[in-house]
Amino acid sequence: MKLDKIITSPSPWLEPGGPHDDIVLSTRVRLARNVAGRPFLNRLPPDEQQELEAYLKKAVLAAMKPDKYTWFELEDMPQVDRQCLVERHLISHELAAGKGERGVAVGPKQRIAIMANEEDHLRLQVYSSGLQLQEAWQEADAIDDRLEAQVIYTFSPKLGYLTACPTNVGTGLRASVMLHLPALVLTRQIEKVFNAVSRLRLAVRGLYGEGTQATGDVYQISNQASLGHTEQEILKTLGTVISQIIAYEKEARDALAAESPTALDDRLLRSWAILTHARVISSEETLALLSAVRLGIHLKRLKGVDIGTINDLFLMTRRGHIQKMRGAELGESERDVARADYIRKRLGTN
Amino acid sequence: MKLDKIITSPSPWLEPGGPHDDIVLSTRVRLARNVAGRPFLNRLPPDEQQELEAYLKKAVLAAMKPDKYTWFELEDMPQVDRQCLVERHLISHELAAGKGERGVAVGPKQRIAIMANEEDHLRLQVYSSGLQLQEAWQEADAIDDRLEAQVIYTFSPKLGYLTACPTNVGTGLRASVMLHLPALVLTRQIEKVFNAVSRLRLAVRGLYGEGTQATGDVYQISNQASLGHTEQEILKTLGTVISQIIAYEKEARDALAAESPTALDDRLLRSWAILTHARVISSEETLALLSAVRLGIHLKRLKGVDIGTINDLFLMTRRGHIQKMRGAELGESERDVARADYIRKRLGTN
Repeated sequence: MKLDKIITSPSPWLEPGGPHDDIVLSTRVRLARNVAGRPFLNRLPPDEQQELEAYLKKAVLAAMKPDKYTWFELEDMPQVDRQCLVERHLISHELAAGKGERGVAVGPKQRIAIMANEEDHLRLQVYSSGLQLQEAWQEADAIDDRLEAQVIYTFSPKLGYLTACPTNVGTGLRASVMLHLPALVLTRQIEKVFNAVSRLRLAVRGLYGEGTQATGDVYQISNQASLGHTEQEILKTLGTVISQIIAYEKEARDALAAESPTALDDRLLRSWAILTHARVISSEETLALLSAVRLGIHLKRLKGVDIGTINDLFLMTRRGHIQKMRGAELGESERDVARADYIRKRLGTN
Repeated sequence: MKLDKIITSPSPWLEPGGPHDDIVLSTRVRLARNVAGRPFLNRLPPDEQQELEAYLKKAVLAAMKPDKYTWFELEDMPQVDRQCLVERHLISHELAAGKGERGVAVGPKQRIAIMANEEDHLRLQVYSSGLQLQEAWQEADAIDDRLEAQVIYTFSPKLGYLTACPTNVGTGLRASVMLHLPALVLTRQIEKVFNAVSRLRLAVRGLYGEGTQATGDVYQISNQASLGHTEQEILKTLGTVISQIIAYEKEARDALAAESPTALDDRLLRSWAILTHARVISSEETLALLSAVRLGIHLKRLKGVDIGTINDLFLMTRRGHIQKMRGAELGESERDVARADYIRKRLGTN
């Protein structure tokens, strides 16, 4: 599959239809692995990094069905393409900004990505739509087994998998759930929820890790500790907390609809109105408005708007995608115009 | 004509069709007069005030065609009705908030209003649509002659007409022009213009005298001095300045359209979008949005929107009118909802 095709296709972590998809956008399971007998990346000389990448590419394509996976080299990839892959969560900021030979294998439907020469030698990640921690984990585990048939991992019987950063030692597992929590934000309960989450040693980040509210009320919650617990324990703790947050968000949504329906409708309809009429719109404003519209659809207060289109716009209106679709590097003000045009086109109000 | 009918009719100072109606909403000429041999209002005992009001009512109706004029007593008028008359500029804040017997005669099409027992015994005012200083003055002058056939004015051969406040002594004339200056505000030239205006001893006020920007970019410019100049001199000075301001505003509009058409369209279309979608809207926001839409129509960038409706909404969305139309006293948040409903109804997007 060509990169351009990937960048214009819907992304699985935004497709509706998964469990709890009114609140949970997607589930991600990521495993960090390193090849035995080789230094970690930060100590690897350039020529060995190049050799390692070739080795990993071969191993990954041997382990997986090579006709279903596409390997992309990062080193010579244009900046805008790297940006798009980051926006799609197919690669990390670190891989995009890294140096030297490094790559990523992208699997069917963009649900699986295996990065080579990121912080660790291998980072494999599986995305599922909605809340599917067990399913994503089992899939990642199966891929891990296939990779292990090709590669000998560094593994300590006492500590588990060894990784470049101590936070990943042990299982090498990071499970994260992407949640849309507009009602908790609107009712000013989000801080309280996040404080409780932190005490359970879970991490909260924004849509792209910024951790700010200005990212469409989308938050990723993931385990911080990878050591000292089995994979199932990690998944169970996370799953329990996520279920509680889902319940809180639902409560907050119902309360908004019951207690201040007119103020709520005002917010939803103004957001829709601006999205469908603006000629210039920033990335941040877009996310904030999309968030309100998404809430409105799920509360059945905004009718006739396709949720898949709204979800897709969370991604397609990002900086890289806007430029990729225009086929040109654009300055900020040009992007803001192109973004507004694109949104109106997608919402059928051009 | 009944008060309720007046309050639901279009107001002449907002009807399009007058000269320069893209920029000038209306022209007003006001004359202040007092009856000879009677103390000014601030020194008038209550029983004499009552007697004077009866006398003035009789005189005014005798001078004018009584079948075309309706006399309204202010003293027992509900607060919301007084508020509506102020919003229509048929009476002053002072008359609405005053004490004791006082009244107003409203003439055909709400173009003429003659107040009794305001600051002066008589205040007669004539409204014309667009820029019509001479026409409004001639009409006021003719009415003044008819009143003078019924009433002997206090007049000093040396000073001219005597009035309660020294600023009105002399001609008793205040001519004022209501201008819509959104482009001068947007391009930050308005302060410069107003500074120049002040140096010419002209006064600038907002739509309802507040003098703030938050009143839909509508400003009233009027003469300050009434003494030492003939009526024609006063009108000439004001007319010259108004013509210059019209030219500046036109220039600013053309510059906006030529230099930043997309940013301009963004502002116009967002304003239209919010007006047609909001469920809760304040009075101040309404005026700001109406101002942008009005600019858009006159620049031919917003098509298919009736200018008469937009002008009318400047008035009909005021606090008093919103309550009058609902037939109930409403708190601020109730008004904001009723206002949004009314706007959508008028703009055909309910």
